[in-house]
Amino acid sequence: MAKSDEGDACAGKRGSIGARRNPATEAAILDAAAEIVEDGGIGALTMEAVARRARAGKATVYRWWPTRGALLLAVYERQKQIGAFPDTGTLEGDVAAVLRLLFAHWGRPEGAVFRHIIAAAQSDPDLAEALEAYRQERLESLMQVIGRTAARGELAEDVSAADMASAVMAMAWLHLLTGHLDADPVALARVLVRGWGQ
Amino acid sequence: MAKSDEGDACAGKRGSIGARRNPATEAAILDAAAEIVEDGGIGALTMEAVARRARAGKATVYRWWPTRGALLLAVYERQKQIGAFPDTGTLEGDVAAVLRLLFAHWGRPEGAVFRHIIAAAQSDPDLAEALEAYRQERLESLMQVIGRTAARGELAEDVSAADMASAVMAMAWLHLLTGHLDADPVALARVLVRGWGQ
Repeated sequence: MAKSDEGDACAGKRGSIGARRNPATEAAILDAAAEIVEDGGIGALTMEAVARRARAGKATVYRWWPTRGALLLAVYERQKQIGAFPDTGTLEGDVAAVLRLLFAHWGRPEGAVFRHIIAAAQSDPDLAEALEAYRQERLESLMQVIGRTAARGELAEDVSAADMASAVMAMAWLHLLTGHLDADPVALARVLVRGWGQ
Repeated sequence: MAKSDEGDACAGKRGSIGARRNPATEAAILDAAAEIVEDGGIGALTMEAVARRARAGKATVYRWWPTRGALLLAVYERQKQIGAFPDTGTLEGDVAAVLRLLFAHWGRPEGAVFRHIIAAAQSDPDLAEALEAYRQERLESLMQVIGRTAARGELAEDVSAADMASAVMAMAWLHLLTGHLDADPVALARVLVRGWGQ
């Protein structure tokens, strides 16, 4: 950590690892990364290109986002304009609302990058690891939605909330990856939440 | 169709489009394609490389598999050693069996190519189209599994079989794409088939 950090004064001088970020530098790096992806697709995103475009030190970029995958997901997350999942009063309604929000988001250009993140993760272990960490966070959010129903004492006890959250995410991903974001969230929520037997 | 077909006598002379395939030539082409994918990944698969390696005419390859995506899926399908989905007597058991078979298949090297097919389809419209056609076929197979339960009069009537099949496929794909093929098919089948409410 003795080595000084070209281009970034604040965090570099402190020698901290990820602890204190200079918000202006962070914004410049994420802006640069977003522009590079917009211009050339996610294949064009390299740490070098980002540092150059943001006029930041490469070491700074690496300190805050240790891998290209982590940076790519940070760009995606920052652009993600999904509000809190609404509480509709029923689990089926909540799941439909989640799917509706995701489909709308992924249908926008900045959301479309997510399918390419999943795709690239299939042959990029660093990105796969970053995606997995992000995915676990998102599963937690989904489990909170499900937890509302559990808190009302309306949830089945023989099905795990983690598996329910996975089922919702699975349905969302399948529709993203096959270009079916126009599917009816209400029908999909129904097949997930209701039982299939009589 | 007057143009003769270098390297492939039979189909070439007949001038048929896809109607009559010479089984030996077909096997040679699929073998060649599988070897190319094995050696260099799916990025290495081009119609030219396949024709050269199979000593077949490029026109023959194109006639039987109009796109690289169609050929890639044909290779995947031929190597797919999944037997019929067993009839366990319950829908939950049947869905668990489907997931168990898929997870086992995708865990093998020749099955692993499927995640790369999904990945490549995200930026290759031809492959996306071929994958979508294949996926619809697989949904039909899943709907047959579900149809057995419907035939016994044990299926809910307010959930469509097509959506149920999608839910099973979605769960399978999510686990493939995130490297969780070690998940418990029984627990996943439970969350899909049982209701989540009390």
